[in-house]
Amino acid sequence: MMTKQNLFDCHERIKPFVHNTAVLTSRLIDREINAELFFKCENFQRAGAYKIRGATNAILQLSEEQKNKGVVTHSSGNFAQALSLAAQSLGVTAHIVMPNTAPEVKKVGVREYGGKIYECEPTVVARQALADEIAQKTGATFVHPSNDNNVILGQGTAVLELLQDQQALDFIFCPIGGGGLIAGSALAAKYFGNKCEIVGAEPFEADDAYRSLLSGKIEVNETVNTIADGLKTNLGDKNFPIIKELVGTIVRVTEEEIITAMKLVWERMKIIIEPSSAVTVAAVLRQSKENPQLLRNKKVGIVISGGNVDLSKLPF
Amino acid sequence: MMTKQNLFDCHERIKPFVHNTAVLTSRLIDREINAELFFKCENFQRAGAYKIRGATNAILQLSEEQKNKGVVTHSSGNFAQALSLAAQSLGVTAHIVMPNTAPEVKKVGVREYGGKIYECEPTVVARQALADEIAQKTGATFVHPSNDNNVILGQGTAVLELLQDQQALDFIFCPIGGGGLIAGSALAAKYFGNKCEIVGAEPFEADDAYRSLLSGKIEVNETVNTIADGLKTNLGDKNFPIIKELVGTIVRVTEEEIITAMKLVWERMKIIIEPSSAVTVAAVLRQSKENPQLLRNKKVGIVISGGNVDLSKLPF
Repeated sequence: MMTKQNLFDCHERIKPFVHNTAVLTSRLIDREINAELFFKCENFQRAGAYKIRGATNAILQLSEEQKNKGVVTHSSGNFAQALSLAAQSLGVTAHIVMPNTAPEVKKVGVREYGGKIYECEPTVVARQALADEIAQKTGATFVHPSNDNNVILGQGTAVLELLQDQQALDFIFCPIGGGGLIAGSALAAKYFGNKCEIVGAEPFEADDAYRSLLSGKIEVNETVNTIADGLKTNLGDKNFPIIKELVGTIVRVTEEEIITAMKLVWERMKIIIEPSSAVTVAAVLRQSKENPQLLRNKKVGIVISGGNVDLSKLPF
Repeated sequence: MMTKQNLFDCHERIKPFVHNTAVLTSRLIDREINAELFFKCENFQRAGAYKIRGATNAILQLSEEQKNKGVVTHSSGNFAQALSLAAQSLGVTAHIVMPNTAPEVKKVGVREYGGKIYECEPTVVARQALADEIAQKTGATFVHPSNDNNVILGQGTAVLELLQDQQALDFIFCPIGGGGLIAGSALAAKYFGNKCEIVGAEPFEADDAYRSLLSGKIEVNETVNTIADGLKTNLGDKNFPIIKELVGTIVRVTEEEIITAMKLVWERMKIIIEPSSAVTVAAVLRQSKENPQLLRNKKVGIVISGGNVDLSKLPF
């Protein structure tokens, strides 16, 4: 069930374990695009990204018996760290399946938060097979990073908070990776916004959601040659119906636009955002150029999804 | 006059033209050093640094006749941009003397804010001579970046705000460059703190203030081979007496400690701070190691002075 009450309850449930992150503004960028922007800063969230919200909700919905047996997921990115930290906060064991190609820095992060790492071949099939095997052996509950109703609800609480802070938003731009964040955000905008429209943001290089909306069924990425490593995953059968119903527009951006937007925010706002979040800023900038009337003098929310960047590998 | 009332009035005067910047915390860094840290984020200030406070106050104290004739300063760094922006906001002309070796990016910043640039040889004598000449020709009022009572008062308003936000701070760490910020901060702590001690932070490579406190007179830097380019300047006769009276401790840090602290804040707090601000964080970290009892369970303010960094020249 994904009702307004469910989303509200979910927020109450996870509140003690996550930050209500700051909403920042920038007069300078506002002036550039003739709109009023509100940046919901999930880069300041625990473990550096919004993912802890869904991970925490998924664990809190388990029975005591299930909690005792732990949770398992497969992820090479932010969700691995988020589930580890959420589990640690709640005294639960987290089994994390990671591809053996995952960078050492990500593994260190997972271990720091107490997650148990299991390495596998870097294929979708191998990841799921190992996760299933661990679930069977240990009795741990599988938590999917994006295609899980409890995770979707949890991710939606960032936009719920943004709308509590700024009730009159006309648009909220949100990145699309596996689809959990935008599905939850779209529910939050429907239930707590006032005619607030959710706009998706994707790289041209990983535009599965854009093409899925066009065809009406889940399409997979044909290329994933993007700096926005958090957005390479595909949609799922739990989140796609919500996206299909509630998201009208998806704006695609080039790699150059992503890097330019990332630099703009770093230089002007002095905050560190990861490339996946820069995709969302780039989408706002592109929209303000291609369709200046649409955003003019409007209040626009931007979900800054995370700030986990390898400082030794910057694109500028 | 530098009374409590003067400082309070100064804050009221400049309020409409500057941001009351956020005060951030980090559970993670707190845990590492067993203290409660409060980061006053002047990297989020207009023009990216606290300097706009003093610049604005200096201009607002001028008569209408003086304002009509403009202001002049010499600076290669943040004060050049700050005075330009403050002047622009107040409809005043700003003449900025810069060494001909100043990086192009700094000149662009000054021009963007409407400052008129005059280039000179990169020596203290040449800078002052050209500034004097411009003052004589145009009737503009000279505003020194750090050795000016109105500037000192203005810079003190950052700590005033920090103490309004967090009244029970035991210590406030503050970087020392030309001495304007720490002098103003020390006055603010004296007038608005509750037994709040100001601690200075300096690179070993530019430790003029440390040596000046020891000798009791203004010493000049013997080396300035530091990444903290904002802290290479020397103290002045207006700010040194205040520092001498109110600052008991100055902690010096190595270049390696500065870079480590900068990376720590970027990675853990997801905010961009410049090396001069990292000096202050490094001083807290060093103090917490060398003298763990001193800071244990104490409330410690940190003035994050600015976030102006050339992203193409990072030390990591």
